[in-house]
Amino acid sequence: MRPLNVSLIQQSCSCNREANMAKTAGMAKKAANEGAKLVVLQELHCGLYFCQSEMTEVFDLAEPIPGTSTDFFGTLAKELHIVLVTSLFERRAPGIYHNTAVVFEQDGSIAGVYRKMHIPDDPGFYEKFYFTPGDLGFTPVRTSIGKLGILVCWDQWYPEAARLMALAGADMLIYPTAIGWDMSDDVTERKRQLEAWEIVQRGHAVANGLPVLAVNRVGFEMSDTPGASGICFWGSSFIAGPQGEMLVSGSTDQEEIVAAKIDLDRSEKVRRIWPFLRDRRIDAYDELTRRYRD
Amino acid sequence: MRPLNVSLIQQSCSCNREANMAKTAGMAKKAANEGAKLVVLQELHCGLYFCQSEMTEVFDLAEPIPGTSTDFFGTLAKELHIVLVTSLFERRAPGIYHNTAVVFEQDGSIAGVYRKMHIPDDPGFYEKFYFTPGDLGFTPVRTSIGKLGILVCWDQWYPEAARLMALAGADMLIYPTAIGWDMSDDVTERKRQLEAWEIVQRGHAVANGLPVLAVNRVGFEMSDTPGASGICFWGSSFIAGPQGEMLVSGSTDQEEIVAAKIDLDRSEKVRRIWPFLRDRRIDAYDELTRRYRD
Repeated sequence: MRPLNVSLIQQSCSCNREANMAKTAGMAKKAANEGAKLVVLQELHCGLYFCQSEMTEVFDLAEPIPGTSTDFFGTLAKELHIVLVTSLFERRAPGIYHNTAVVFEQDGSIAGVYRKMHIPDDPGFYEKFYFTPGDLGFTPVRTSIGKLGILVCWDQWYPEAARLMALAGADMLIYPTAIGWDMSDDVTERKRQLEAWEIVQRGHAVANGLPVLAVNRVGFEMSDTPGASGICFWGSSFIAGPQGEMLVSGSTDQEEIVAAKIDLDRSEKVRRIWPFLRDRRIDAYDELTRRYRD
Repeated sequence: MRPLNVSLIQQSCSCNREANMAKTAGMAKKAANEGAKLVVLQELHCGLYFCQSEMTEVFDLAEPIPGTSTDFFGTLAKELHIVLVTSLFERRAPGIYHNTAVVFEQDGSIAGVYRKMHIPDDPGFYEKFYFTPGDLGFTPVRTSIGKLGILVCWDQWYPEAARLMALAGADMLIYPTAIGWDMSDDVTERKRQLEAWEIVQRGHAVANGLPVLAVNRVGFEMSDTPGASGICFWGSSFIAGPQGEMLVSGSTDQEEIVAAKIDLDRSEKVRRIWPFLRDRRIDAYDELTRRYRD
């Protein structure tokens, strides 16, 4: 057994950036004290989810990488001696901003970054306005505790992204997320959405024989868009094993540390009884690079 | 709403081929009488699951397409005025045999075939000995009730197969299946396996915004291999909607008709709120055709 204690930090955010970061640091410290060697933060954890409307001044929140935030989280990772997965609004150049996950080594150095590849745009989630699609591809970040297949939120609906990370040797899939309900949807629709979100990611675990870690924020955040009803982020952060089996999952509405001990050796055991990677029909997959087969 | 009544025939099989086919016909007739317009049979429904051991004489069971079995099921489809999805052991040439789904139109004609693309081989499921990998690719079968994305059993673990069917305009994904437990596995492992099987297919529904129909056999079948413990087929045939929501599912051990009314218009509604196909990064998927990215 190759055990690894992992913790997800599920929190709410306010417009007070320093307070959010202090809360994150406090929860990460508690997780580390409880034995976590890998701590994963939710998507854009430094503040409110700002994509509910399109406002040019929001770009002022973007920051260079490395920069002030990476200094802060690097210091935190070093202090706690953990590998830390963060999610920042990157200012790469004037007019080029990304939704970027930054991974810190136990010594506080930056182990690698991933720039969100799939960018959503639907009512309340106007991300195409803010985020330039990633140009680093699907490459795991190599760390002292394993190769981390970091993907971000909307990526989680794409089997292609999970597969490419698995094929590149990822030891696990990790999804910092900001997803929630439009409360004008009825209860059954909200239930379907939450289950679909969980199922599709557990499906990636199954199809690739890898653990999956998904961490999502909680709390209601208002919209500045007239008539929009805001987003109730549904939490439910979870850790699944390489057969998609649920190891632990969080509440829909509480700030909490969602923790589990995963066994990195189990992936190979599972892949020996279910050798999906062996039988892929790579001779017949060419058209996956087409938009539509019409 | 574009409703379609679909029925899955979940049955056990004996070594008596005629009795199996008569039972299938009886259940299909009952399904049609209850309103089914599409009836789907399980994988290799004419007999025992013969891949538990490797015996050359088993190839005698294979048959040409068209042939005696397609005459039988074509007549049945015409009599019941249904679209019927069957699963046969195809003899294409001496030494070339396939695991082939044959789809019949309401008038009894053959609407199209699909030859199983992904072929498993693990203890008790020695399919690579019997089945030449399919060479027809992932192409839906066009019928009077819609384009059917037929895939077979082991294909169900491959998101690539589901995606290629969706990109080719499939209205639903259909998985005739023969999967079960090795009862020497403990209860928790058996539970993980059944859940993984269900989750990965519901995940395809979510990722592609399509209904999924999976039909599996029930019953215990002995193995001719010394020391092998046989297979307890786990049934659990199910129909899920385009958000992966479970509409109906069968028992693990009873012969039954698993039926639901699906709404073919819901896929487009779902794809409008979750437009995953719009945002695929086809510029970054090239390496899906590699065996491994090392």
